[in-house]
Amino acid sequence: MKFGRIAVEGPDGDLARLVMVLPEEARVVDLKRAYSDQLKSEGATQEAAIRVAEAIFPGSMSAAIGAGDAFLQAAKKIDRSRSDRASLAIEKVRWLAASDPSVVRDGLTFVGHIKGFHNKIGSPPHPSILKVPGYFKGTPHTVIGHDAVVPWPGYIERMDYELELGYVVGRRGGNLRPEQARDYLFGITLFNDFSGRDRQQIEMPIQMGPTKSKDFAYGVGPWITTIDEFKDLDAIPMEVRVNGQTWGKGDSSNKLWTVEELLAWVSLGERLEPGDVIGSGTMGGGSSLELDRTLSPGDVIELEAGGVGVLRNRLGEPQQGLWWPNERKPFM
Amino acid sequence: MKFGRIAVEGPDGDLARLVMVLPEEARVVDLKRAYSDQLKSEGATQEAAIRVAEAIFPGSMSAAIGAGDAFLQAAKKIDRSRSDRASLAIEKVRWLAASDPSVVRDGLTFVGHIKGFHNKIGSPPHPSILKVPGYFKGTPHTVIGHDAVVPWPGYIERMDYELELGYVVGRRGGNLRPEQARDYLFGITLFNDFSGRDRQQIEMPIQMGPTKSKDFAYGVGPWITTIDEFKDLDAIPMEVRVNGQTWGKGDSSNKLWTVEELLAWVSLGERLEPGDVIGSGTMGGGSSLELDRTLSPGDVIELEAGGVGVLRNRLGEPQQGLWWPNERKPFM
Repeated sequence: MKFGRIAVEGPDGDLARLVMVLPEEARVVDLKRAYSDQLKSEGATQEAAIRVAEAIFPGSMSAAIGAGDAFLQAAKKIDRSRSDRASLAIEKVRWLAASDPSVVRDGLTFVGHIKGFHNKIGSPPHPSILKVPGYFKGTPHTVIGHDAVVPWPGYIERMDYELELGYVVGRRGGNLRPEQARDYLFGITLFNDFSGRDRQQIEMPIQMGPTKSKDFAYGVGPWITTIDEFKDLDAIPMEVRVNGQTWGKGDSSNKLWTVEELLAWVSLGERLEPGDVIGSGTMGGGSSLELDRTLSPGDVIELEAGGVGVLRNRLGEPQQGLWWPNERKPFM
Repeated sequence: MKFGRIAVEGPDGDLARLVMVLPEEARVVDLKRAYSDQLKSEGATQEAAIRVAEAIFPGSMSAAIGAGDAFLQAAKKIDRSRSDRASLAIEKVRWLAASDPSVVRDGLTFVGHIKGFHNKIGSPPHPSILKVPGYFKGTPHTVIGHDAVVPWPGYIERMDYELELGYVVGRRGGNLRPEQARDYLFGITLFNDFSGRDRQQIEMPIQMGPTKSKDFAYGVGPWITTIDEFKDLDAIPMEVRVNGQTWGKGDSSNKLWTVEELLAWVSLGERLEPGDVIGSGTMGGGSSLELDRTLSPGDVIELEAGGVGVLRNRLGEPQQGLWWPNERKPFM
């Protein structure tokens, strides 16, 4: 099954709604509407139907996934008896980020990208990347969905995309072992880790992780495909197009750490939360840096993955006039 | 004023309640209870009083602060007319983390610590720390409050504390300038950035930021003192004691970046959210690493700051039997 989030107008402004996505029919089903209709047909009052439907299908994907089997069971029931009344044409919806994660995390797993990136920047990766799975954390406030314009902070000169899968967490859990981790995976989406390469080069040597080079936008969408629809997590075809031209193409093979190892590692000493999004890391050749190509405002980036779909975003105009700190004098 | 969060028993398990803290009277005031009592005395029904009191004083500090002036005004009203019925003895309460931030961030600002840390690890800081304010992001799920036992993951050998102030955000905002940032500061708490030094040394050279060396526990508490109670943010006395002995003592002076610069920097391209906690960075001499001393399970760490109070935590027993990844072979 495929699940996403859209915006609809409400009396106090936009509301988020969960949808089941039927790409082959070019429709989405408003899950709260469909479920409350179904509850009413089974004897619920109007008020009770809306109350229960809101509890099972809230606007938050994380909250919905957090209900565990109750969420998927209700969605499956709708799938069998959905009404036209709750269905919308796919080209008319306004997409939101497919999930609203409590934390964004992004791993470093594809060997091809590690080689390509370090060849370009002219220094080898630190041997620590062989000891433990590297990942960074991103602020969850700047996730954007399909068709959203990517904010371009004026302090970034060299904008880039990163072609990644997004692993969406299905259950709360900590201190997992890799053999347990698969059960904590709800589904897969696309993840675009937009990056300011010039800023990244300055801030990463501080060793505290990326901040201004990454935290302005993370693309998550267009929707999430549940994990049962994937046969082999190491053989998912992936592609990135810029303005309609293919710039990178490959698949999800050749990983330094498996999906299960990455999830188990992230869960150590802390915990995974339902709806959390963990980037796979960039596919080999999945950034313009690796290709010596550059991007401009207005460029349209499309990420595609087999079994998921296409996440499309257009780069906005650089935002000027922002404050910038004055450099300090050396003190040691 | 001083605000904190405590746990109380409810029919479905523990509930979080906001309290106003009166250290000089050794009492805390349950804000929801006090406010609903007051609303009833002014004509509200029991149900309406509880509904309105829950909206103004929910269990989430972030949600409460997010109400802006409405929160502080209601709290001030209670301060003038509080009833004994809503007051509890301070030594009997079970503390929760003083805030529930959407993201944990931790800066690098005290010159003394940067010197002390790099002298000990035997390598100088990267010149980038002079160009931009460095900070890392931490998972928000592992914040702990006053008196909580610190989980000690078994993969950490050298446990450490860090004596820091926690800047608590009062308003949502992005792309701030330093001269605006003071208005976004709700108050100050203590922040203990517990750190696994042996693990930190391995993972930080990956340049994606600390993960397993930090994300197991962030101490936040005992409560938040509102910003109007501080005359000078660069002259707050600070101290750390281990098992009752003073290990570090100083104040909040000698910063590479001001509080306002740190907040403005964090807000660039993304946003601050009410209740977010931003660590000041460690005070010079505010870690055992700088003193060549080590900690053991059972040790009690007390952080103290003038105008705030004392945040006390005991180190737990190392948790054994966790999974650990096998090292990979070099590939480039």
